[in-house]
Amino acid sequence: MSRRTDDVATLIAEAREGRTRAVARLITLVEDASPRLREVMAALAPYGGHAHVIGLTGAPGVGKSTTTSALVAEFRGRGLTVAVLAIDPSSPFSGGALLGDRIRMTEHASDRGVYIRSMASRGHLGGLSWSTPQALRVVDAAGFDVVLIETVGVGQSEVEIARAADTTVVLLAPGMGDGIQAAKAGILEIGDLYVVNKSDRDGAHKVRKDLFGMLKLADRAPEAWDPPVLATSSLNQQGLAEVADALVEHREWLAATGNLRVRRERRARDEIEAIAVQELRSRWASVGEAGAMKELSARVAAGELDPYSAADALLA
Amino acid sequence: MSRRTDDVATLIAEAREGRTRAVARLITLVEDASPRLREVMAALAPYGGHAHVIGLTGAPGVGKSTTTSALVAEFRGRGLTVAVLAIDPSSPFSGGALLGDRIRMTEHASDRGVYIRSMASRGHLGGLSWSTPQALRVVDAAGFDVVLIETVGVGQSEVEIARAADTTVVLLAPGMGDGIQAAKAGILEIGDLYVVNKSDRDGAHKVRKDLFGMLKLADRAPEAWDPPVLATSSLNQQGLAEVADALVEHREWLAATGNLRVRRERRARDEIEAIAVQELRSRWASVGEAGAMKELSARVAAGELDPYSAADALLA
Repeated sequence: MSRRTDDVATLIAEAREGRTRAVARLITLVEDASPRLREVMAALAPYGGHAHVIGLTGAPGVGKSTTTSALVAEFRGRGLTVAVLAIDPSSPFSGGALLGDRIRMTEHASDRGVYIRSMASRGHLGGLSWSTPQALRVVDAAGFDVVLIETVGVGQSEVEIARAADTTVVLLAPGMGDGIQAAKAGILEIGDLYVVNKSDRDGAHKVRKDLFGMLKLADRAPEAWDPPVLATSSLNQQGLAEVADALVEHREWLAATGNLRVRRERRARDEIEAIAVQELRSRWASVGEAGAMKELSARVAAGELDPYSAADALLA
Repeated sequence: MSRRTDDVATLIAEAREGRTRAVARLITLVEDASPRLREVMAALAPYGGHAHVIGLTGAPGVGKSTTTSALVAEFRGRGLTVAVLAIDPSSPFSGGALLGDRIRMTEHASDRGVYIRSMASRGHLGGLSWSTPQALRVVDAAGFDVVLIETVGVGQSEVEIARAADTTVVLLAPGMGDGIQAAKAGILEIGDLYVVNKSDRDGAHKVRKDLFGMLKLADRAPEAWDPPVLATSSLNQQGLAEVADALVEHREWLAATGNLRVRRERRARDEIEAIAVQELRSRWASVGEAGAMKELSARVAAGELDPYSAADALLA
């Protein structure tokens, strides 16, 4: 029985029929870096490319989970199926606190057109976990129309989400203080769509106005996409229709201009590169105590060798 | 003349005599990824290992630059020379804003025992720039007693700074709201020393108490370092002597237990790995339009190939 449900071809067939358990099992194979991951990825390859992959990022406290949940409801209302990959910070300490947010998602728990998965953010790449692009392949191949990737948008994860997604939504909110000001800089370069949430609060108008001003200063090519700045009150399910419309419009723009293919080839390149680098890292590490890396590190630390010569030796 | 001052051996000799211009020129060679970088690193290798490398991280607004500046004053009062590497977010948009903070450092501008450098945070690794470990080699070889690496502590850069430094200081402050709460989780795993700045403000005591409680819950080996939690008011130059004492104590602990060598070998391994990966990435990218990576990415994006098989092909 367990043998049968773990058969990769069967799991994929079931996932494509909309069976959530099979989707979950495949993502677990991804997260556990199962030896059968290669087999899974090879079998999934022909089925990819259907989903609109939407990255949603923003500082802690802007209402990412609420907005994700509201957006899920909006897309469901349009008859689309939605998968959510929510990336948590990697720390075991944070598990509890952030899981609390996930509970808001339970309104969708009984809806078979919705699949929600919290992904651990593991490994040296931080923000977006190593396994996210592969989990994305699973839900894409399973036939979901929309995949929402939600990350805590601080630093590097913003850039990673923008590279992984077709469309990147940057969420802001009034009254976030210094943090959001500092974060804005990086944010200006990655958003295809800006959403000021908690728009019923004081200062929401100013955040929107400031953002407009900053985006205007950005040096865009005339043929480039001009990112809209929208307002929501996700807790009250307000403004989500406009957000969904803008998302659809961006996706159509991507397809019409050839940018969809460009983005997806870039995503593929990032994936290939990450897998190749991971493979090399494990080769370098696996030589053990007597291994080249161990000896090279000791020699570099002792000042007997410089890191470039050590890297040459490693690659030779 | 310009030819002479760019001679690597001369630059290194001058840097080791305390000439700031030579130090600056060498770091510029690092930042520009000069073709002579290998030569520089090979020539610097024998001179490393003297400096106490201290990473200072914390959320925006906790007073990192003020604390760095106050700590520089404290170390200078003890007769030690100090280099500061300040890592800015990579965005061109943020240059102006963050440079403002740097101005506080000008009190040290005329002190030859202090060298301050703002580093751009470039490249895919985010937070800590690719060039930071190599800039660290320059100031270490130049003979500075203390090197302070200051980063905006959000997400991944915290982990990177903890791996690059001998001692990691995590700075907090009262009244930072949601952001700091979410950030705390990752913070608990990386600090060798916690400093609650703005200790004259309401809530400072609570931050300290909460932190004590959270650190107590952490599962530490009996022989592990027990991170102290100190309080400062850096703007008023208060509490810095205790911080400096704790830093010295941690450094002595590292040396006495053999952990200094362990950390430095790990840092060397990270450096070698990063250089090797960078070298491979540029090889993969340099094949041009007709290159393997370009074709592999297109085939993966089109669903003709899975990313693992593509990575195999790339490495073959």
